[in-house]
Amino acid sequence: MNYPSKIVEETVQQLSKLPGIGKKTALRLTLFMLRQPEELVKPIAESILLLKSQAKVCKKCCNIADEEVCFICANPKREQHVICVVKDVQDVLAIENTHFYTGLYHVLGGVIDPVAGFGPDKINIPQLLQRITQEPITEVIFALNATIEGDTTVHYLAKQIHAIREDIKITTISRGIPVGGELEFVDETTLGRSLQQRISL
Amino acid sequence: MNYPSKIVEETVQQLSKLPGIGKKTALRLTLFMLRQPEELVKPIAESILLLKSQAKVCKKCCNIADEEVCFICANPKREQHVICVVKDVQDVLAIENTHFYTGLYHVLGGVIDPVAGFGPDKINIPQLLQRITQEPITEVIFALNATIEGDTTVHYLAKQIHAIREDIKITTISRGIPVGGELEFVDETTLGRSLQQRISL
Repeated sequence: MNYPSKIVEETVQQLSKLPGIGKKTALRLTLFMLRQPEELVKPIAESILLLKSQAKVCKKCCNIADEEVCFICANPKREQHVICVVKDVQDVLAIENTHFYTGLYHVLGGVIDPVAGFGPDKINIPQLLQRITQEPITEVIFALNATIEGDTTVHYLAKQIHAIREDIKITTISRGIPVGGELEFVDETTLGRSLQQRISL
Repeated sequence: MNYPSKIVEETVQQLSKLPGIGKKTALRLTLFMLRQPEELVKPIAESILLLKSQAKVCKKCCNIADEEVCFICANPKREQHVICVVKDVQDVLAIENTHFYTGLYHVLGGVIDPVAGFGPDKINIPQLLQRITQEPITEVIFALNATIEGDTTVHYLAKQIHAIREDIKITTISRGIPVGGELEFVDETTLGRSLQQRISL
């Protein structure tokens, strides 16, 4: 495409590096910013520049943090003996939003995906196993996606954790029909699982 | 939402100012940038900062430009007696990509939309009328969206142009069934118009 200006072309190029943003969306965003006043556009760029220099990784749970340790790990009111293992920072936010969990987290930064060549060495497993050894953990809850990769990761880690400390209780979040979901629209695997793993009242 | 870091929260806030980008997408983009190396993220912010200071508006056709006058207006090989009137810079790019047009453009920056309170004074009409007076224009082609607002703008401008110079030919791009389109899936208005405005072979 023949862009009307070099800097417009450059900005489109840069923005389309971001996931889910193609050339057309990037152009729309660029022209939007061009129409906005300076004081609205500048903070966008500035926040991106600060992002890489200011945000840290929590040295305990691998969550994003402003300090050495994230605000969840730093909070003494959180239950110190439960770790909820999640894939990404987004998952921490999702669980925090439920207000149902008061323990600690561990962010893996991915799941084991042998097909894509993403092995156990690529995710934050050593940090988790170190915590198992050093902290007074009594339960590890796995809250990973209900996919083959998620399940593979749970099985792999459960073995590793039990090899270190057999007394730790290992659980996963339940799978079943979503709250508000209607039976006839739920896929067979989910419905089958929710029958197998039925709960006594 | 309780973001794990102030700068992450700030970046999410900033990015969600952009059109079509909600809080969830903004968080996804922010965490993506956090995972990328510095040398990939910095140019994104820098291009946005340069955008507002470097990009200019062509003083002839109101297109985006690097210089006083855009590269289309500055090109002596373009037909100097035809102006194609479009709504936005994106439309210039779309028409340029067809390689079917060799004349000049005029970017209105919007269309007249009385319902939304967007009157003729909000778009680049004076500049267009000035060009009609000063340049050797013989034809004005309207390439606006096939909407009520687009049509209103065409009628309003056609009157204004003919009030200045009655000899100017005024045309609009044809409406009809899209190339490759099948009759049965085309809406009735479009099909009706393409019958009314049938072309003799």
